[in-house]
Amino acid sequence: MSNSSPEPSPILFFETINAYQRTAAIKAALELDIFSAIADGQTTVEALAAKCDASPRGVRILCDYLVMMGFLTKQNGSYQLTQDSSIFLTRQSPAYAGGVTEFLLSPTLMEGFQDIAAAVRKGGTVMPDEGTVAPDNPVWVKFARGMASMMMMPAQMMAKLVDAEAEQKLKILDIAAGHGMFGITIAKRFPNAEVVALDWPNVLEVAKENAEQAGVGDRYSTIAGSAFDVEFGSNYDLILLTNFLHHFNEATCVSLLQKVNKALSDDGKVLTLEFVPDEDRVSPPGAASFSLVMLASTPQGDAYTFSELEKMLKQAGFSHNELHQLPPTPQQLVISQK
Amino acid sequence: MSNSSPEPSPILFFETINAYQRTAAIKAALELDIFSAIADGQTTVEALAAKCDASPRGVRILCDYLVMMGFLTKQNGSYQLTQDSSIFLTRQSPAYAGGVTEFLLSPTLMEGFQDIAAAVRKGGTVMPDEGTVAPDNPVWVKFARGMASMMMMPAQMMAKLVDAEAEQKLKILDIAAGHGMFGITIAKRFPNAEVVALDWPNVLEVAKENAEQAGVGDRYSTIAGSAFDVEFGSNYDLILLTNFLHHFNEATCVSLLQKVNKALSDDGKVLTLEFVPDEDRVSPPGAASFSLVMLASTPQGDAYTFSELEKMLKQAGFSHNELHQLPPTPQQLVISQK
Repeated sequence: MSNSSPEPSPILFFETINAYQRTAAIKAALELDIFSAIADGQTTVEALAAKCDASPRGVRILCDYLVMMGFLTKQNGSYQLTQDSSIFLTRQSPAYAGGVTEFLLSPTLMEGFQDIAAAVRKGGTVMPDEGTVAPDNPVWVKFARGMASMMMMPAQMMAKLVDAEAEQKLKILDIAAGHGMFGITIAKRFPNAEVVALDWPNVLEVAKENAEQAGVGDRYSTIAGSAFDVEFGSNYDLILLTNFLHHFNEATCVSLLQKVNKALSDDGKVLTLEFVPDEDRVSPPGAASFSLVMLASTPQGDAYTFSELEKMLKQAGFSHNELHQLPPTPQQLVISQK
Repeated sequence: MSNSSPEPSPILFFETINAYQRTAAIKAALELDIFSAIADGQTTVEALAAKCDASPRGVRILCDYLVMMGFLTKQNGSYQLTQDSSIFLTRQSPAYAGGVTEFLLSPTLMEGFQDIAAAVRKGGTVMPDEGTVAPDNPVWVKFARGMASMMMMPAQMMAKLVDAEAEQKLKILDIAAGHGMFGITIAKRFPNAEVVALDWPNVLEVAKENAEQAGVGDRYSTIAGSAFDVEFGSNYDLILLTNFLHHFNEATCVSLLQKVNKALSDDGKVLTLEFVPDEDRVSPPGAASFSLVMLASTPQGDAYTFSELEKMLKQAGFSHNELHQLPPTPQQLVISQK
């Protein structure tokens, strides 16, 4: 070993082997609602144990672990929230995102990670029935229910990037709408916009609820079924393709994009929200790591680079394609025109 | 929000929710023996896929993820090992540590993390039969087989801290010996040392194999049973208590330490290897995070601070106690005398 090399260390290996314990700890903290209890002024082990109906020993060990991970701070035996924990992990906050566990830690999604070696051998999910892209997979209802809060931030960023007059009539198609928040947020910004949401029928129930709650229910209609099978209609000003393409291989994406192209008005735009890694495919971490999720849970999906997306979009007739970063979210937006 | 605060970000939360995927990825890489294949000169996706009998698509996605985690580097589509991956994760290396997954990712240990919220409520493991400290739990054979390689580094550091003449006769008791590497390493350094290893009978088979392989089998004897029940013998110069106290509550530790005290010669020393967090209990991460492992897998175990260990040791009649850090391992050594 050269003297200039740092001392060999197995620490990264140990931390990675034990990384699943971090998932287990944050899940438990949300279940016990530790963060809301601290926001409520219960900051000592004894007070938190009483509030969360748990043992002082268990609360002390869990909260120390949350400090170690960076979700809490600790001073003189008293725990405090970080800014991010206060915003995203307390039920008192409108941006509470704890509900994402319903989808992100659903048995369906986690099952895909039970045997990654097998998925690497095969080159795709080893879950039965094509994994999460199986028709009507009930995991998408969990997605729609769990992920709405977390998608508020990218939805608002996306709505701001819609370049139209305030009073303009906009005909919007929201493909694989899920919770519907992307279309709904645009509808809130543009009072003359009308949204057509497309998804499985059980998922559309969630989107419709959200549209009603947001006060745009009278401008919200739906198409139930698979985006590959149903008629889209035509002459849309905006078509939203959010977190959809990554589930499929390139040929499937191109054929869908051709269908999208036909449904779009001549000066319409397609907004594609995706995890778009840099061309090296190993950065930034949030986007780059998403490929493994697709390997684990779909037959042929991927996190496509911008050059791959651009190639597919061009094949489908979109000559202008722009990439937008959406920090601090891990996602990117591609805006395409014919 | 004050303007001086950084932008709110859900990134840490997302990363932690998905942390289990890191565990799944490193486990798969070891199963497919990706690191050894790269050490063997297979550095492209195609070459690795052929060598590891896997799909190019799966290999590309897994290797990119390993780059993202810091286990590999990538240049011009070719993957290279980091120094630490080369030392600890390739089978060509004598320090190969991939075998730790047999213990650290055993169903028994991982089961304890299935429901941390329940463990926090209860204040201890929710696994049946006292979790990992149940008599004769077969997980300790996995421990003995899987952890030997990883314990070489602390074992060698510990052996160097034994302050004795090279030719001195040393009578050593190795309590809960497991793989036996701590006693064996000292026996290799001191040719007149004799080691008595204590553990469950099935575990001792592993220790005896390792002692034979290390060439110290003729100075190696065993006592089969529970450390709390069997007779230790007396007049030991060294007693090793490695990774044992953390499984038990303080009263149990004190009663064991009293038994240890009686078995030790007047000028003998006890070497206690532990995860010893700082007094704030939230640093350093390797030691501090170990409390959660004990909450998940034992009824009342813990990662004790030095002041807690010192209090127990003093109660058991040890008046001199010194804490030694063992970097880069996450562990600490306490050396005690009457």
